[in-house]
Amino acid sequence: MRHSKNAISRISLLVLLTGMAVMTTSRADDEDVVDYRQHIMKTMGEQVAMLGMMIENRAPAADFAKHAEVLALTASTAKFAFESEIEGGAAKPEVWSAWEDFAKRMDALVASTADLAKTAKAGGMVAAGPKMRTALTCKGCHDTYRVPKK
Amino acid sequence: MRHSKNAISRISLLVLLTGMAVMTTSRADDEDVVDYRQHIMKTMGEQVAMLGMMIENRAPAADFAKHAEVLALTASTAKFAFESEIEGGAAKPEVWSAWEDFAKRMDALVASTADLAKTAKAGGMVAAGPKMRTALTCKGCHDTYRVPKK
Repeated sequence: MRHSKNAISRISLLVLLTGMAVMTTSRADDEDVVDYRQHIMKTMGEQVAMLGMMIENRAPAADFAKHAEVLALTASTAKFAFESEIEGGAAKPEVWSAWEDFAKRMDALVASTADLAKTAKAGGMVAAGPKMRTALTCKGCHDTYRVPKK
Repeated sequence: MRHSKNAISRISLLVLLTGMAVMTTSRADDEDVVDYRQHIMKTMGEQVAMLGMMIENRAPAADFAKHAEVLALTASTAKFAFESEIEGGAAKPEVWSAWEDFAKRMDALVASTADLAKTAKAGGMVAAGPKMRTALTCKGCHDTYRVPKK
């Protein structure tokens, strides 16, 4: 079968467009993975900020237990969100090269925030406040696994 | 008692600094009120973004029920965060001038997100997904009570 010059051009264009579509799709997927885990980390950041405001008496502590519960629930979704080895956002490559340590720390955060939430549910900020420093292991993990903010 | 020029300067400085401190404190308080409610609204925004990603198949739906629960819990803290009549952030003055309507809408959001979370807990995204559009009344309220984003 003989191809006309036009047909070859059309086929070339099709190959090119298909290639672009594949590239676009896979890039969007990676962005989604990064977006999703960033939504989770931001949610935890918002909760920690509110709990901190309450501790510092800059916000009423009435909903301390609810925010602690939201923090614990969100922490329990975080490790899963990093399981796809997709670099991007503020995650250092060490998240995956040292996965065992990263995962262990995430599990510890799940446990400590669950304990914080349970204590807060029973006794509010008065009971849970003193546990904040040890429960919130954010900094230790960020120092190792997050690209420093500029 | 005779004040030296230096003593008067010192007293003037003290009065000035005290005045500044008072101004700073009260401004910080108002900022805290705005900050606190913004943390709540941002948390809801993050959850809605994640639920939306799951509906659009851009994130795994495994934790759909948890994010719906976080959304419901957070919604239940929102009305209280607006009770102090402090303008600022993206809140229009109508939040307080039409408080009865605003509060009614907030209560409706609490009810609809609680129902969404309950449905998701029982049947995951398959069951709760179809309720998303009616449960999430964000836009109606934002159109009326939020300063449009630039």
